[in-house]
Amino acid sequence: MQSDHFDIVIQGGTLLTMSAKMEIIEDAVVGIKDGRIALVDKNRNLPAPKIIDADGCLVLPGLINTHTHLPMVCFRGMADDLPLMDWLTKHIFPAEARFVNKKMVYDGSMLAMAEMILSGTTTFCDGYFFENQIAEAVQACGMRAVVSQGFADFATPDNPKFEKMMAAAERFVARWQSCAPMITPAFFCHSPYTCSPQTLVNVKAAAREAGILYLTHLLENKDEIDTIEKRYGKKPVWHLFDLGVLDHQTIAVHCNWLGPEDIAIFADLGVRVSHNPASSMKLAAGVAPVPQMLERGIAVGLGTDGSASNNALDMFREMDTAAKIHKVTMLDPTAMNAQTVLCMATIGGARVLGLDNLIGSIEAGKQADIIVVDMNQPHLTPIYNPYSQLVYAARGADVKTSIINGKIIMEERRLQTIDLTQTMDNVRKIVSHITAEIISDTGRSLPFPVPLSG
Amino acid sequence: MQSDHFDIVIQGGTLLTMSAKMEIIEDAVVGIKDGRIALVDKNRNLPAPKIIDADGCLVLPGLINTHTHLPMVCFRGMADDLPLMDWLTKHIFPAEARFVNKKMVYDGSMLAMAEMILSGTTTFCDGYFFENQIAEAVQACGMRAVVSQGFADFATPDNPKFEKMMAAAERFVARWQSCAPMITPAFFCHSPYTCSPQTLVNVKAAAREAGILYLTHLLENKDEIDTIEKRYGKKPVWHLFDLGVLDHQTIAVHCNWLGPEDIAIFADLGVRVSHNPASSMKLAAGVAPVPQMLERGIAVGLGTDGSASNNALDMFREMDTAAKIHKVTMLDPTAMNAQTVLCMATIGGARVLGLDNLIGSIEAGKQADIIVVDMNQPHLTPIYNPYSQLVYAARGADVKTSIINGKIIMEERRLQTIDLTQTMDNVRKIVSHITAEIISDTGRSLPFPVPLSG
Repeated sequence: MQSDHFDIVIQGGTLLTMSAKMEIIEDAVVGIKDGRIALVDKNRNLPAPKIIDADGCLVLPGLINTHTHLPMVCFRGMADDLPLMDWLTKHIFPAEARFVNKKMVYDGSMLAMAEMILSGTTTFCDGYFFENQIAEAVQACGMRAVVSQGFADFATPDNPKFEKMMAAAERFVARWQSCAPMITPAFFCHSPYTCSPQTLVNVKAAAREAGILYLTHLLENKDEIDTIEKRYGKKPVWHLFDLGVLDHQTIAVHCNWLGPEDIAIFADLGVRVSHNPASSMKLAAGVAPVPQMLERGIAVGLGTDGSASNNALDMFREMDTAAKIHKVTMLDPTAMNAQTVLCMATIGGARVLGLDNLIGSIEAGKQADIIVVDMNQPHLTPIYNPYSQLVYAARGADVKTSIINGKIIMEERRLQTIDLTQTMDNVRKIVSHITAEIISDTGRSLPFPVPLSG
Repeated sequence: MQSDHFDIVIQGGTLLTMSAKMEIIEDAVVGIKDGRIALVDKNRNLPAPKIIDADGCLVLPGLINTHTHLPMVCFRGMADDLPLMDWLTKHIFPAEARFVNKKMVYDGSMLAMAEMILSGTTTFCDGYFFENQIAEAVQACGMRAVVSQGFADFATPDNPKFEKMMAAAERFVARWQSCAPMITPAFFCHSPYTCSPQTLVNVKAAAREAGILYLTHLLENKDEIDTIEKRYGKKPVWHLFDLGVLDHQTIAVHCNWLGPEDIAIFADLGVRVSHNPASSMKLAAGVAPVPQMLERGIAVGLGTDGSASNNALDMFREMDTAAKIHKVTMLDPTAMNAQTVLCMATIGGARVLGLDNLIGSIEAGKQADIIVVDMNQPHLTPIYNPYSQLVYAARGADVKTSIINGKIIMEERRLQTIDLTQTMDNVRKIVSHITAEIISDTGRSLPFPVPLSG
């Protein structure tokens, strides 16, 4: 075999393929050519211009974060531990109205991507304002992303005249559909309580016409059931069902209060779900019935949500949380196992995003989105079960090297496509402005003192 | 001021004192002399033979882990996601009976301490077999610890003749009481369901005579209520109350099913609590009513529990979990705030262990147990609120330098008192023996395949 057969070879270590057979290969070798996985084998040395030594490491598909609002890193820790409506209406919404602009979105996204790459994420699905800037940042740093143009029936920072949203959205799709498979445009209706039936239906029609995904926050909080019932005389899932917007190209985000009847509808229609356990715990929103969804064959992926409500974009932490919260909620330690959680964070997430033909497992022919996790560390010793170790003991900082679409994006913890110092400085400048404004308004310095709990 | 006034000076950064006033000092300086904090001030340069530059860092008291079983690192990931009784009776108890010995305890403890130091813990409270070996390992690596001799009414690996336990325990106390304030001996009755009333009473009497702490697992699982009611005709806390073993020198570990009446008893008697949220989530044991305990003024500290049931000894992860689990359980985002959680992990833990006159805050006169956390990282940018950032965004790997009793135990992520490669190798050898025995018994290779959940 000639050395020009591969651009990069990952040599050694234990490979978790996350294929349908969940094959685990010891002393593995992965050959990468032209952005794709060209060969998966074991016990052999392959020549290549670039060899990555994975001895003592686990090699696995890059993690897929199915729900983010990247620029919210600029609000990370600004207003925590507050009643939900105070948090939203007194802090987050006003801050967004005032401080969100193209530069904040671009700079914040770059910082969020630095954090995500350094913790093993290779693909994410985002929804926010100025999504064009987010897609440009994605291009600059070489990640893979679904970028969703947002819709709500009120003026937003990027669409002061919301009647013109649809035209802007169509331009957005046209611009980014040509950047497949690195960038996939989608539409995001904020929620059934902030979007009218007409908006929900119109946006779904446009999404169907463009052949793209349609997302909505759904049943994050219990209150939403009352709100929708009062307004439309039915429960949220029936409301969406009757509007005809639920199908296999629809992703419902959160779903903490999905009932058995809702789950049956989702299973029948192939609706997909993004599960964000840490954010929903921090906001005291609820716990999604994920074991029940998986039992019905619903595609479920993991997500971190934005940095204002988590506050980390580390999918390793999210996996640990996902594995544990269902056990304690159901008082059943078998409710969710480590292997299932790693599936949700890889091939499951790919299925949710409709990208499972391209990514989510390490198999010849797929795009090369691969991470190498350094297991030669005290907190990862010993290893009885690699799935357990990744989910319950590893953390984002253990990811050593990351490859996206066959390109090395991080090597030995050094980012290859992002100037980290500059990126952090950019956000600090934005935030020092935000902080100065808050202090000038309130006459109080940060952090605002919070009484101890209890 | 002469340079021999201090052995070490920590210069710059933001100091979270965790004192009663919760003072935060910008551009702080901490002078350390003879193991103690000699000076806390700001905006000045002090000479010393060793200067630690904390610019861009948070400086805070070392974290206190109030519940561990260190040698269980050797079983980390061996048997996860199983029904609780299968886990205990088919995996953990047999493995302990077969593989626990002095060498396993010493080597396992060294690995656990490496992990703990690297993630910011400076003091822990342990209970296991062969606790003498654990105390020796503590001395070797320079951590601070409460080491608890265990009691149960059955033969244990270190006490095949359990009638002789008390004599051994008295020798244990005599040996280690002279090593204060680095090592504090204590007694640990495993639980009200594994210790007879006589054992509970006798051990408490001996603890009172020696003036030492008395610990017990309590109400970890709901079943314990039934078990104790059937056996003794009363609920577990009343059972212990009637035996007279509850007082301010008693630490109850877990307390997931503590009721309002139990909380009132604990508050009246000054009983202290170790809260282990991640372990209790993973074992599907329950969620302790910690906000209610704090409201009644009960001293509550955080703990990780052993590595077989968590599986990490990282107190940063534990803080994040503790802050979030009470919010979602009570559906109230104000149920537990970041500042309160950091208190539980520092001064609160010190109170639980009866060491709050020595450690738990950074104040002149206290022993110098201090960690320096590197905040110049993408996932910790920006900083609005240092408490939020530490609890919700930081992780163990962000701890840069650790000082215990005035000695630098870790500097720039390098351990100063533990040979990490040797320590990991020692545990790997032990585990390859365990694995070989398991495979030889079962004829199956590890990891045992687990069906996907759902």
